[in-house]
Amino acid sequence: MNAPLLALHPDRLFPAERETRAVARALYASVKDLPIISPHGHTDPAWFAEDAPFANPADLLIVPDHYVFRMLYSQGVALEDLGVRPVEGTNGRAVETDPRAIWRRFASHYPLFCGTPSRIWHDWVYREVFGLEVRLTPQTADLYYDRISERLAQPAFRPRALFERFGIEVIATTEGALDDLRHHQKLHADGWGKKVITTFRPDQVLDPEFEGFAANIGQLGALTGEDAFSYAGYLRALAARRAFFKAMGATSTDHGHPSAMTADLSLAAAERLFARALSGEISAEEAELFRGHMLCEMARMSLDDGLVMQIHPGSLRNHNQHVFARFGRDKGADIPTRTDYVRALRPLLNKYGNEPGLRVIVFTLDETSYARELAPLAGHYPALKLGPAWWFHDSPEGMRRFREQTTETAGFYNTVGFNDDTRAFLSIPARHDVARRMDCGFLAKLVVEHRLEEDEAFVLAHDLSYRLAKEAYRL
Amino acid sequence: MNAPLLALHPDRLFPAERETRAVARALYASVKDLPIISPHGHTDPAWFAEDAPFANPADLLIVPDHYVFRMLYSQGVALEDLGVRPVEGTNGRAVETDPRAIWRRFASHYPLFCGTPSRIWHDWVYREVFGLEVRLTPQTADLYYDRISERLAQPAFRPRALFERFGIEVIATTEGALDDLRHHQKLHADGWGKKVITTFRPDQVLDPEFEGFAANIGQLGALTGEDAFSYAGYLRALAARRAFFKAMGATSTDHGHPSAMTADLSLAAAERLFARALSGEISAEEAELFRGHMLCEMARMSLDDGLVMQIHPGSLRNHNQHVFARFGRDKGADIPTRTDYVRALRPLLNKYGNEPGLRVIVFTLDETSYARELAPLAGHYPALKLGPAWWFHDSPEGMRRFREQTTETAGFYNTVGFNDDTRAFLSIPARHDVARRMDCGFLAKLVVEHRLEEDEAFVLAHDLSYRLAKEAYRL
Amino acid sequence: MNAPLLALHPDRLFPAERETRAVARALYASVKDLPIISPHGHTDPAWFAEDAPFANPADLLIVPDHYVFRMLYSQGVALEDLGVRPVEGTNGRAVETDPRAIWRRFASHYPLFCGTPSRIWHDWVYREVFGLEVRLTPQTADLYYDRISERLAQPAFRPRALFERFGIEVIATTEGALDDLRHHQKLHADGWGKKVITTFRPDQVLDPEFEGFAANIGQLGALTGEDAFSYAGYLRALAARRAFFKAMGATSTDHGHPSAMTADLSLAAAERLFARALSGEISAEEAELFRGHMLCEMARMSLDDGLVMQIHPGSLRNHNQHVFARFGRDKGADIPTRTDYVRALRPLLNKYGNEPGLRVIVFTLDETSYARELAPLAGHYPALKLGPAWWFHDSPEGMRRFREQTTETAGFYNTVGFNDDTRAFLSIPARHDVARRMDCGFLAKLVVEHRLEEDEAFVLAHDLSYRLAKEAYRL
Repeated sequence: MNAPLLALHPDRLFPAERETRAVARALYASVKDLPIISPHGHTDPAWFAEDAPFANPADLLIVPDHYVFRMLYSQGVALEDLGVRPVEGTNGRAVETDPRAIWRRFASHYPLFCGTPSRIWHDWVYREVFGLEVRLTPQTADLYYDRISERLAQPAFRPRALFERFGIEVIATTEGALDDLRHHQKLHADGWGKKVITTFRPDQVLDPEFEGFAANIGQLGALTGEDAFSYAGYLRALAARRAFFKAMGATSTDHGHPSAMTADLSLAAAERLFARALSGEISAEEAELFRGHMLCEMARMSLDDGLVMQIHPGSLRNHNQHVFARFGRDKGADIPTRTDYVRALRPLLNKYGNEPGLRVIVFTLDETSYARELAPLAGHYPALKLGPAWWFHDSPEGMRRFREQTTETAGFYNTVGFNDDTRAFLSIPARHDVARRMDCGFLAKLVVEHRLEEDEAFVLAHDLSYRLAKEAYRL
Repeated sequence: MNAPLLALHPDRLFPAERETRAVARALYASVKDLPIISPHGHTDPAWFAEDAPFANPADLLIVPDHYVFRMLYSQGVALEDLGVRPVEGTNGRAVETDPRAIWRRFASHYPLFCGTPSRIWHDWVYREVFGLEVRLTPQTADLYYDRISERLAQPAFRPRALFERFGIEVIATTEGALDDLRHHQKLHADGWGKKVITTFRPDQVLDPEFEGFAANIGQLGALTGEDAFSYAGYLRALAARRAFFKAMGATSTDHGHPSAMTADLSLAAAERLFARALSGEISAEEAELFRGHMLCEMARMSLDDGLVMQIHPGSLRNHNQHVFARFGRDKGADIPTRTDYVRALRPLLNKYGNEPGLRVIVFTLDETSYARELAPLAGHYPALKLGPAWWFHDSPEGMRRFREQTTETAGFYNTVGFNDDTRAFLSIPARHDVARRMDCGFLAKLVVEHRLEEDEAFVLAHDLSYRLAKEAYRL
Repeated sequence: MNAPLLALHPDRLFPAERETRAVARALYASVKDLPIISPHGHTDPAWFAEDAPFANPADLLIVPDHYVFRMLYSQGVALEDLGVRPVEGTNGRAVETDPRAIWRRFASHYPLFCGTPSRIWHDWVYREVFGLEVRLTPQTADLYYDRISERLAQPAFRPRALFERFGIEVIATTEGALDDLRHHQKLHADGWGKKVITTFRPDQVLDPEFEGFAANIGQLGALTGEDAFSYAGYLRALAARRAFFKAMGATSTDHGHPSAMTADLSLAAAERLFARALSGEISAEEAELFRGHMLCEMARMSLDDGLVMQIHPGSLRNHNQHVFARFGRDKGADIPTRTDYVRALRPLLNKYGNEPGLRVIVFTLDETSYARELAPLAGHYPALKLGPAWWFHDSPEGMRRFREQTTETAGFYNTVGFNDDTRAFLSIPARHDVARRMDCGFLAKLVVEHRLEEDEAFVLAHDLSYRLAKEAYRL
């Protein structure tokens, strides 16, 4: 049997209605070749610093991608059979080490991804990056494996070459506050310092419930020469790390707390909670309060150093205790929860929300907050902007809901363009392409329903694809 | 004046856009005649066991259907005037006993149902089952009443004949854990045991707040010969009843708790709560905890006996105390509430969610959980699957929202096809038809937006209409 | 450069699909010229009583409209620069007093409103009321200012003339319970008493947390000659004020509590809470309980006097403490919060919800309650009806979500048509026009998907545009 063709239709993701599609096509044509601004994500800076070839198809596209392996896991495929390694010892259960076997297993389950964004991203990578022209099926699994392997060995498929080919203008990675940023230092030295920048992610030193919090604070002190076990020294050390990250290109910080809770504590109260956090005697409520207070402190420091503040709340991490114990973090078991913003952000917004010099970008996994809470807040406070549809909602339907539910109250200009938030480097152009197509489709609908003029839609398409991200992140 | 025609347009429920509609039509043509799998519902097994004629139009289509009479009640029509009988005595308020009068009253309020699924289901029954060709209006009420009455007297309109005519392959009824299943025994003896199966619904013996809980436990012991007043005997008695239901065809259990809360208590704690439940001294929180614990016990038993577990949480039953006191349960006053799944299901999922041999199908009345909680959970845990849009959401818009909000994260294969969940037997084909049309319309949209290939859509249409339900419920 | 044209396309807001648009057009043509029923809003009765010319473009269209200035504020424009006056003293920060400067500032930020309903309303006012034919840009700001100023000076642009020109049949303003209704008395004397009616809004005397509660009660007693400091006298005084408002045309009351909580307290408990409220010693929970109890009392009085009861819950007022302290209420910083209805309304509904003689119209800012809570409640209780999409949701997408999420369960006839809820008088026809267009588009979609017959859609279009509002509000 002939393998079915893999085609990326030029009209994909555009609304079917003829006139709307024509407008969407024209808008998209005007933005599709704009450079990619990727101001928030999780690619590995080592790739760009070392520029070594990627290992093989499975280790590039399957094993590290929890979007992919969680779906197979949900259908009864063991994580070990997909090459996911237990944290300590295999406990008698063999882990697949043959990347070709992993690839074949993935291929035989590829129909599970019908209707998901993973399918869109993968097909783009297969077609556009590797030039594959038939669909991935069990029958074509080896063809895929061989083609991808062969290409990965070529210089044109090394990280820096792909970076240029993808038209990336700037990409931000994300590093913990204790990171030595050695890869960014190398990039800096190589003249890539403006292209690959870091982001300051201090969860491990702001969250008393993070693994090894006290030890982390110890390390923070050692790195900065401050007495980080005193609250005053701790704040100075944080400011010093921010300065170091900023020197390595960072224009933003990122905060992944369980909730959006903020608090504005007295110095005495903050000192007391900090001491309890260090002693390990802090309660869950006190830890939440301390995290919330530290978000206010981060906002204060942002006013000083100009770093844009990102808040990514609302994920209940490691829901599956068995998977967490055996395989560790980021194994597809982080589940969104209901998240309040109105009362949670009030302390921070009342303290700093009227400062036009501050920029706080808020994300959500709880779409019910779009129209009810976030658009009204962002449509009022000068400091607040809305991040794009995030994680589970970084998808065609998710992006559509984001625009439909935020635009009428917050407008377009209280949003900040797209960011891909991914560690899957090869899919980055596909993700930005989805966002550009969906935004153009949304704008086209407004045009054909005479809710927006066509000339305005062209300006907006450009702004949403390029300008807003650059401005919002001060790039 | 001429009565307006009653037409069921062949393109009904398909998207209007021309190309999308053409694809939807083709997909639907390939699935419309597939047998009906009805794995969850509330038809009366006596109908199929006894195969007696239905009484009259009002008692068949109006009086028992809370979807119907609640709408008239909301507009000021007394339930008594629709033939709904008070639980004890009429208290001086006459109850309508003339089915023709009830029918006329319904007919005169039929425009209330414009835009509702009840309208779609009823029109289908009138046209396809009874061959009526004019619309139901006050002027045609008697024509309708006479035609339906006349047909109901014919052998071809008896339950078993309709069952065959409707192309039903298998239907599951739902019986309480204490039911003697006499009708299913008769069906079994008649060779209908594979066609009409039961479902094990133990709320009355798992929920300490159920009316007559202690007496129910007494009856449970009497039926099984176990000392059901001891916790160990109680568990043995439940296992015995499950076995009995399984012998009468059951492949699943069903649980209608107020919340999705689960708990994994120690034996001592469970025993203590059970004793308090029997004594009637249990608090609301303890009752919730006990119910949650018993869901875990049910999951454990499912691992043993292979019964699929269904959880239908989130309805606040009998919201209207006056209606409940006068007319009893199921009178259209059950109202959905906000329902958490992430924390509620965690104990059960952490204990059994990684078992590929277990199947737990979860439903919701809180659509905000689709994209935020249920799709991420079902897209990760091997044991968890999503039931279709349920109850108030078993409607064109509800089904559309279900697919739009679950597919991108959970895919199609963590869902379980359609089930009608109805006691309105004559409408069952109409309900499955709505689901098939809406799914085909959804798939067609993905095809014309180039998010899915057409050959894949044909496979999916078949799976969603037939195969997934059969597999999910182990039929 | 030529200024871009300002065109109001005749098909604006209709779905793009050709057949759907044709049906929508036909439906809209049948309702577009129906009189406007505006049963709930916040226009100033002084306008209609005194019929004085409006001052200037900025004071008419910008300075008092928090929809407008909050968007500019969110982008860093100071409220002072838009002419918004601090409550006491400017504290050294000059307030713009030149209306032309304010207008120019607004014009230069007009693109912020792309995709928002404010843009739709404003463009309608510019084109239809003032005959402007080019778009508002920085270049045309002065042309706009001059044209609008010139027209406002003409007799045809006085409030009563516009009222007639707009085809308003009746408009309800909203006054606090202590208002002397002098403007309504004047309107009454002038023969305008049926055209401009009041609404009884007693928050200031029902809510113990309202500024100056005890003083308000004192004033309530003085106005009515009752001893309002005794609970019995307080109830008599409230009934007296209701009677006075009713004599000035009121057919409804309105209640803007933080939540939808209702309570049915014993007389003793109510008396105790009332005494604590007067003493200022009431806790937040007690205040909530008292407000909830008073909603039940209002329902009881509505059964007596026939006033329709409106409940507008769920706004967290004055979220921004700095803006509140400097500029006072209604400055664009009221933010919706998650709102429960199922448990909150239960006491009131169990006491009075089965009374067909009572009418309670409930609104929401929490769209998640549409399908989950409000449609099921309104589809059951005779006394309950759903108000239209409100405030942030009074927009094309908001209206679409309202119909999509309520119709299948509550039908159309448990809703009450549109109300504009605005103080922006000139935009009232634009707002009703948006509602009529969106409803016609929604009905057209049902027609072309064969979910509704075309003749039914024409009846419904008329009902939703005119009849239901008139009936629901007993006008």
